[in-house]
Amino acid sequence: MTVVASAEQEVSSMSQLITHFSDVRAATVELARPLSAEDCCLQSMPDASPTKWHLAHTTWFFEEFVLGRFIEGYLRFNENYRLLFNSYYNAVGPQHCRAQRGLLSRPTLEEVHAYREGVNRLVIDLLREPRRVVRNTLRQIIMIGLQHEQQHQELLLTDIKHALSCNPLLPAYQLEDDQARQTREDATGLASEMQWIEIEAGVYDIGAPEARRFAFDNERPRHKTYLHPFALSSQLVTNSQFLEFIEDGGYDRPEFWLALGYKTVQSAGWTHPLYWYRTADNSSDWQEYTLRGPRPLVPEQPICHLSYFEADAYARWAGARLPTEAEWEIAAYRKTRDRACTEPLALHPGVSSQDPEASQYQLLGQVWQWTSSPYTAYPGYVAPPGALGEYNGKFMCNQYVLRGGSCVTPRDQVTTSYRNFFPPDARWQFTGLRLACDR
Amino acid sequence: MTVVASAEQEVSSMSQLITHFSDVRAATVELARPLSAEDCCLQSMPDASPTKWHLAHTTWFFEEFVLGRFIEGYLRFNENYRLLFNSYYNAVGPQHCRAQRGLLSRPTLEEVHAYREGVNRLVIDLLREPRRVVRNTLRQIIMIGLQHEQQHQELLLTDIKHALSCNPLLPAYQLEDDQARQTREDATGLASEMQWIEIEAGVYDIGAPEARRFAFDNERPRHKTYLHPFALSSQLVTNSQFLEFIEDGGYDRPEFWLALGYKTVQSAGWTHPLYWYRTADNSSDWQEYTLRGPRPLVPEQPICHLSYFEADAYARWAGARLPTEAEWEIAAYRKTRDRACTEPLALHPGVSSQDPEASQYQLLGQVWQWTSSPYTAYPGYVAPPGALGEYNGKFMCNQYVLRGGSCVTPRDQVTTSYRNFFPPDARWQFTGLRLACDR
Amino acid sequence: MTVVASAEQEVSSMSQLITHFSDVRAATVELARPLSAEDCCLQSMPDASPTKWHLAHTTWFFEEFVLGRFIEGYLRFNENYRLLFNSYYNAVGPQHCRAQRGLLSRPTLEEVHAYREGVNRLVIDLLREPRRVVRNTLRQIIMIGLQHEQQHQELLLTDIKHALSCNPLLPAYQLEDDQARQTREDATGLASEMQWIEIEAGVYDIGAPEARRFAFDNERPRHKTYLHPFALSSQLVTNSQFLEFIEDGGYDRPEFWLALGYKTVQSAGWTHPLYWYRTADNSSDWQEYTLRGPRPLVPEQPICHLSYFEADAYARWAGARLPTEAEWEIAAYRKTRDRACTEPLALHPGVSSQDPEASQYQLLGQVWQWTSSPYTAYPGYVAPPGALGEYNGKFMCNQYVLRGGSCVTPRDQVTTSYRNFFPPDARWQFTGLRLACDR
Amino acid sequence: MTVVASAEQEVSSMSQLITHFSDVRAATVELARPLSAEDCCLQSMPDASPTKWHLAHTTWFFEEFVLGRFIEGYLRFNENYRLLFNSYYNAVGPQHCRAQRGLLSRPTLEEVHAYREGVNRLVIDLLREPRRVVRNTLRQIIMIGLQHEQQHQELLLTDIKHALSCNPLLPAYQLEDDQARQTREDATGLASEMQWIEIEAGVYDIGAPEARRFAFDNERPRHKTYLHPFALSSQLVTNSQFLEFIEDGGYDRPEFWLALGYKTVQSAGWTHPLYWYRTADNSSDWQEYTLRGPRPLVPEQPICHLSYFEADAYARWAGARLPTEAEWEIAAYRKTRDRACTEPLALHPGVSSQDPEASQYQLLGQVWQWTSSPYTAYPGYVAPPGALGEYNGKFMCNQYVLRGGSCVTPRDQVTTSYRNFFPPDARWQFTGLRLACDR
Repeated sequence: MTVVASAEQEVSSMSQLITHFSDVRAATVELARPLSAEDCCLQSMPDASPTKWHLAHTTWFFEEFVLGRFIEGYLRFNENYRLLFNSYYNAVGPQHCRAQRGLLSRPTLEEVHAYREGVNRLVIDLLREPRRVVRNTLRQIIMIGLQHEQQHQELLLTDIKHALSCNPLLPAYQLEDDQARQTREDATGLASEMQWIEIEAGVYDIGAPEARRFAFDNERPRHKTYLHPFALSSQLVTNSQFLEFIEDGGYDRPEFWLALGYKTVQSAGWTHPLYWYRTADNSSDWQEYTLRGPRPLVPEQPICHLSYFEADAYARWAGARLPTEAEWEIAAYRKTRDRACTEPLALHPGVSSQDPEASQYQLLGQVWQWTSSPYTAYPGYVAPPGALGEYNGKFMCNQYVLRGGSCVTPRDQVTTSYRNFFPPDARWQFTGLRLACDR
Repeated sequence: MTVVASAEQEVSSMSQLITHFSDVRAATVELARPLSAEDCCLQSMPDASPTKWHLAHTTWFFEEFVLGRFIEGYLRFNENYRLLFNSYYNAVGPQHCRAQRGLLSRPTLEEVHAYREGVNRLVIDLLREPRRVVRNTLRQIIMIGLQHEQQHQELLLTDIKHALSCNPLLPAYQLEDDQARQTREDATGLASEMQWIEIEAGVYDIGAPEARRFAFDNERPRHKTYLHPFALSSQLVTNSQFLEFIEDGGYDRPEFWLALGYKTVQSAGWTHPLYWYRTADNSSDWQEYTLRGPRPLVPEQPICHLSYFEADAYARWAGARLPTEAEWEIAAYRKTRDRACTEPLALHPGVSSQDPEASQYQLLGQVWQWTSSPYTAYPGYVAPPGALGEYNGKFMCNQYVLRGGSCVTPRDQVTTSYRNFFPPDARWQFTGLRLACDR
Repeated sequence: MTVVASAEQEVSSMSQLITHFSDVRAATVELARPLSAEDCCLQSMPDASPTKWHLAHTTWFFEEFVLGRFIEGYLRFNENYRLLFNSYYNAVGPQHCRAQRGLLSRPTLEEVHAYREGVNRLVIDLLREPRRVVRNTLRQIIMIGLQHEQQHQELLLTDIKHALSCNPLLPAYQLEDDQARQTREDATGLASEMQWIEIEAGVYDIGAPEARRFAFDNERPRHKTYLHPFALSSQLVTNSQFLEFIEDGGYDRPEFWLALGYKTVQSAGWTHPLYWYRTADNSSDWQEYTLRGPRPLVPEQPICHLSYFEADAYARWAGARLPTEAEWEIAAYRKTRDRACTEPLALHPGVSSQDPEASQYQLLGQVWQWTSSPYTAYPGYVAPPGALGEYNGKFMCNQYVLRGGSCVTPRDQVTTSYRNFFPPDARWQFTGLRLACDR
Repeated sequence: MTVVASAEQEVSSMSQLITHFSDVRAATVELARPLSAEDCCLQSMPDASPTKWHLAHTTWFFEEFVLGRFIEGYLRFNENYRLLFNSYYNAVGPQHCRAQRGLLSRPTLEEVHAYREGVNRLVIDLLREPRRVVRNTLRQIIMIGLQHEQQHQELLLTDIKHALSCNPLLPAYQLEDDQARQTREDATGLASEMQWIEIEAGVYDIGAPEARRFAFDNERPRHKTYLHPFALSSQLVTNSQFLEFIEDGGYDRPEFWLALGYKTVQSAGWTHPLYWYRTADNSSDWQEYTLRGPRPLVPEQPICHLSYFEADAYARWAGARLPTEAEWEIAAYRKTRDRACTEPLALHPGVSSQDPEASQYQLLGQVWQWTSSPYTAYPGYVAPPGALGEYNGKFMCNQYVLRGGSCVTPRDQVTTSYRNFFPPDARWQFTGLRLACDR
């Protein structure tokens, strides 16, 4: 993963960077606060990691790529952590078996917090008196490390949601206070009319602009692409719309599904999105497990926790299709003009409002929106040299791109060019969809 | 799969169609001739089908989509065949379990041949006196059926190669006669110099031209795409070049591989392409199993039986990359101008020649060439209605596009716009690669 | 497997042995006669072998253990057969993968028949002029080889039954002629009254008597065992009795099942014995696939194709239990006095008759009867040295003993001391049960 | 599981029972004390349960079978616990998925301790004033519940050993204090000479005597069995003896192994007992992970953490065999005369001493000794009615009996008639062996 920052744009002084570093690092700790040490050790599937592991791995990242590289003769906190908390960087060394992260009761949660604080102190010391020659590189790697940490903040929440949902007690990650509940319940339902955002044919530029202060390597190079005329829906698909698909026998009708999707539906026994359940088999009262605990399904909320297979089948059933990632980016940019995401960070996506601002489209920061684009390299992409080159490039296979960020994506990460990616059967992220059609 | 044939272009009269039908149908029988009834029943993996099943399924296709639709009150040869020989058409009805095709000792090979002849007779009768109103539709479906049959001719050979290779006796599908061997051995090695075929940036049209008499639905619509400047190698990668990768530790170095590819290498224990073996572990004498039986590896021949993972890793090791399918198509078209494939149909790819014709590039009809493009729908693609809509569209997931046709692809199917597709770990087709690079 | 034959009892001259050899060898060929070459190549699961493989393996046994040992400088028919047709004798050498026996279209069926004839000729030549010193050993190994061949005659039938049953056409191994059908249909139903065969407590001898001309090593040594008083049913459990269990919800009630059995029922989805089916889900008309093809279930026939789990659950449901193998042997001996089996060899078990002979109990030669005894070594058992020591001993783990022989067991193999054994989930043999209870 | 206690033998008054109850319940809590809440939540394989689950399940046992049955209108602590902490009692109701016990971060460890204390209080209240009519039944169920709890005390230790061993840090369950280490290191090595304990042929009684205050249902009825003459080794097989087997290529020589055992060795890649490792592949310095942490292998200690397969292969290699369970019981009884186990409870088995007492034989309380006896019902055994009938009977399949108790078996459970049982590939218990031979 490379960062491209033009030198003249150094808007943040080193002290600003230190503040930013402290804020992001503290935010991760804050996310873990509602959880007990026992909760923090849970791993419910190989793809999801324990909270404690997220806390440690994001720290390992700074120890490995900052302290280990910029402090001569650096002595690690614990030599074993190099193995335990390396996720997948072969260039750094071997890794602890991914599926067994949940078996690491040691180091304890307390020890991991001490590890975090120790590394934080050393990084801040380093940032206070950086050698001139490494200043830029150091800043860039810190920036990557913080973006990386923010990605893990999102994963921390989606992973613990999955883990807690495996407990028949359906415990909440965090209960809602009364005021929040009131606000939520006062919110009016889907107020705006569905419209099509129309885009004409032509050659467009997509990818992160050079001027952007930070972008992941997979958003670059910015490049030209030809688009045929199309339209993108102004609205996310909602729970009630998806229920129509279910009630129309959608999960039992192979004509709507990719062959691999239908095979997955049958072998996994899917009959509804992840986290939905009914109190009785013949009930029509759908419940949904959320990070706030179980609650009745809210019809107007955006559908989420869909696999690509389900999103694609829904679109075909609806007589439409998923947008490509380029289409999504161009249409979203047209409506948001790269303005920051104004939707609030939340533990669950909310209903759309009548806000005349761009947020009425819920393009950013509500649910990740599946696109029909397999995750591939942009033209001219070259993975960076060294271990950080393993950040993105090696995963460009059998995954699909998602766009828009979700309710749990840190707000400053949410941009129109940010590319998330998951295999087509993944459902534990906040993943939904928006329809598109040819013109 | 749809065929788009403009009515005014009816170059072939009905009698020409009957001749073509008879020829293609006879060619399939000819391919099965060297095999015993026992050979014809083998299924070595779920993805590969027995020869007898290919013979029956291609016949079922005509019975289902032609006889069953155009003859009123049509009585099937055997009601059970509708289940047994339906591959994956849910709209037609349920299917016999794919992995158990090798357990169908009945109907016997003889009965399947009788089935073929019976259906042939009825189809020809129908073509002799078609009702005017269905004439065009009938002709189109016959054309699809014959293209479909030709696709299965290729699969028949690749599937039986895999099946026979599982027998420790390594029996040949067909031994070479002396003259053929002489011709082959007289062929000079890789004579031409490697060059780069340079292509400049711009908006290009790709996909099957409207004027083409037949094209699969997935080659359409012809559409615009933007290409950045690039170059495509004038040569296929050869066995000797791939051996360098192996000897450089290629299979043990994760830095060249996609994460999923390296996982596959490790779990499957790959250390060389499919069908290669050594008589002793420490020998450097590589042998190769071919449809002609085992023989020593010929260094100058194009490498084949590679997975996408291996092709991609090789390209990265070589400091290059795979072309996208659009790049491949534009470059191939520039050199071949849509001329028919002149390389001979053969049971194994051959070395390149000094032929000043386009064939010097071995773009067409030697080995399928992996592209870096996941298999997706072209802009504006809509699967045809009904069962034939299941031909291509529902497989557009987790597969990669291959281009160029192989030595066993029927010659008239080999075009620059033909899109083949396989999952990234498939190796039993004649699959190789050609390098590309950015400019 | 060893044979213990007292020298003084040499009732059969060498010429008698040659006749016996020829008869047994011919019988195997006879069993394969109704099958096509395609049928003979089928393998429907790793545990079952193709007919052709049985034909070859039984020949390999004589080539390996007779020709290879008693003919100096013996040259094998084909060196590869040593690998291909070795079942599991590690002391002989490596083995072809068991699950891939069905992929051996070569050698062809014709070649395997030629192999049989060639080996037969050489064995007979050898038996005509044996060197005096090896005479006894030779005779013993021939005897083992023939018993081994007879065991494979039974497996040939049960394996092809399973393979043909996987074909939706449900082809018969051999159709019944009219006369046979008449005879069968004339047979009266279960005429005899069920009684208990009462056995008093005491120390009993079990195992093959020393005087027996042939016995497998696992039937020896004959030894003492203490039995508590018990009774054995005079009848086999019938289809109609087992139907009551099904209709009483037997397959859904864990209280009747071993924990492992219930787990198997659920994971495999068992709701009835193997080879039973209904033409519609809600039909009460049970059909049964037999070697004669499909037919309506005959209520009075002995239940067969049950796993140990089902037999054990039925017994518990019926308020009884399975007998131990010692109990079965003592009770069966008391009723049969080691008389030869008089029930006819047949392709399916028949109903019991009013015959006042022992056969009224159907103790021998109808269905294998599950006992509650895990398959273990008899006290004092030592596996023979060398490869033949692998015949029985190494399989004494996680299998249960069955007694009595089935309708397809060669008649002269059926004795009260013969121990068959299969894992508790195996169902493709002719396996049923008889109840026992404490006194 | 039933208990048979003759009424006249009521040696323990109710107050003694209360004391015993309190002691056993406190002992479990004591065993969990060295572990953090995070440790207590670990589940490293489906067969092993988290410490917290053991704490809760043993409490559930008393709530379900005592409070729920003897207190009218009893209200459970938490209705969900009925599902969560039911192990396998179908008669009680459905069970939480066994493999997912490690995902139960809630209830928290603290809540589980509160659950224990609450149930303890109610049970003690009940025992203080039992209604006369239920007095005997109540006492019997309490006794079963305490024996059950003691079985889980052993499992708690073996399960946490396995879980901690999966952590590359190899943390100790409990470090040894200096004095203990000194004592251990002062212990002299294997002092006694190996002798054979000779037993003559005859009819013997085995199973728990009627007079015994408590016995599990599977130890009953006491019954007669015939034994052939045999001898049992006076010593356990040691680490150094087992090392000879390894160094003789034992793990690579199929001739010593059961077929299923050798298959397991190859698929699991076993080359040594569980918990052994070397710091380098070519090192001869074997280390062993213990509950005290890693330490160098002590040659004189009894081998443990062997599967049945390994024990059986070792015995065959050594020219001996495993004893049957009846042989073991008779020989052990002859040497111990049912005296209580005098070997100390410990976290690892120790070396034998010169103690002239029976303990010199290490028959009891060091390592579980594999017998060659599959786990079956004793003659006349009938599982008790109701849910408690599921305690033992339904597991009598594909398991082998172990005898003697291990270093972590509560001392008052260790008797010569106690039957433990595990599948033949299980290795995480303290399982070793002792040789036997025919006479």
